[in-house]
Amino acid sequence: MTTPRQRYRDQVRTEIKEAALGQIRAGGVAGLSLNAIAKQLGVSGPALYKYYRNRDDLLTELIIEGYDHAAHHLAETAAAVETQTPRARLHALATAYRTWSLENPHRFQLLAGTPSPTYQAPPETVDHARGVFSRFLPILGAGGDWPAGATLQEQMRAADSPGAVDWVERNAPGADVPRVLAGQVALWSRLHGVISLEVQGAFAGMGHDPATLLTLEMDTFADMLGLP
Amino acid sequence: MTTPRQRYRDQVRTEIKEAALGQIRAGGVAGLSLNAIAKQLGVSGPALYKYYRNRDDLLTELIIEGYDHAAHHLAETAAAVETQTPRARLHALATAYRTWSLENPHRFQLLAGTPSPTYQAPPETVDHARGVFSRFLPILGAGGDWPAGATLQEQMRAADSPGAVDWVERNAPGADVPRVLAGQVALWSRLHGVISLEVQGAFAGMGHDPATLLTLEMDTFADMLGLP
Repeated sequence: MTTPRQRYRDQVRTEIKEAALGQIRAGGVAGLSLNAIAKQLGVSGPALYKYYRNRDDLLTELIIEGYDHAAHHLAETAAAVETQTPRARLHALATAYRTWSLENPHRFQLLAGTPSPTYQAPPETVDHARGVFSRFLPILGAGGDWPAGATLQEQMRAADSPGAVDWVERNAPGADVPRVLAGQVALWSRLHGVISLEVQGAFAGMGHDPATLLTLEMDTFADMLGLP
Repeated sequence: MTTPRQRYRDQVRTEIKEAALGQIRAGGVAGLSLNAIAKQLGVSGPALYKYYRNRDDLLTELIIEGYDHAAHHLAETAAAVETQTPRARLHALATAYRTWSLENPHRFQLLAGTPSPTYQAPPETVDHARGVFSRFLPILGAGGDWPAGATLQEQMRAADSPGAVDWVERNAPGADVPRVLAGQVALWSRLHGVISLEVQGAFAGMGHDPATLLTLEMDTFADMLGLP
């Protein structure tokens, strides 16, 4: 049970975050200002700083919630297609990630862009960022040997990225860890290439349907990994 | 011959643009302010507005110069490798684009990101944006039939993107135009996926060398297009 005081604090934090997302929608991450939020909510600046020490603290919470929001959407899709082939699941998850990004462009920019030149994401965001890709890992582990990615896999085998091995073993039990990690970084850059350009509006007037491009990129990615 | 007055105006414009790039380096595009530039150069705000009507005008000139800067770098690389195979030229140009982006991250962000939520790039920037990719076009025209991209090519054939056909015919004479345009958009998203994540620092701590990922992505892209 939470106390009334705790519930009140949670309510204020929620209002602050909603106001912040509204500001980001209107003016980008650069437009985010704690003082402007205080003014909008009718509270004093010092009152607001009891909830968030500074702008970066608020950004970190918004970023973590953004990752979790995307991860939740992908988990629902993954559950709906769990009996399908790895290739069909890859297409379904890629499409779900695109849909989420287009429906939440301000959240996407917060996660996929540089929020601001001085902001440094703290280490606790890493697990949440990985959560977005967790549902892809069993698919990446379902392929066979993957010769084109041999050098990338060697680099992942030699690397010591904290928590990465656990993350793969938890989500793709029995899979070859470096192979999954190499696939994940290649998949991320493929998805980011298509989706970030579309979200930014960079494809406007070029004449293609970005969904077709995403399908092409996921099909050739599945071929590269030898996905059934 | 330019007049002394014209030369003076050119000099002031150059100083304004250098100050603007310095501001973007320090605080992102969001940190760009005409008033701050005026202060830095020791001129009045109204004097500055004689050179650029507003912030968007200045942004447009910086974006056009950024595209031309990248295009010039790629043209030099293209000239150095012009006798090599299409596949080798693709790798050389992709590497040159990555190098330029890493050496000019503030210019890259200006071109490849959303400068600001309210900025709309005017139509005259399109030709300059295309210029970055002009040297890739003869390579994209060098492959054979490309079945995986059939739907994308149909969409490009049906599209009527102003100037696109001229652009391809000028840079890849005799090539199949929709095939080149479909290849160009796919190439753009591949390059953008790898390079924008690297420039943003998103790959930090993952353990791979982004150059290896770019090589992999360009090799499989060349396979997809059937490049010799």
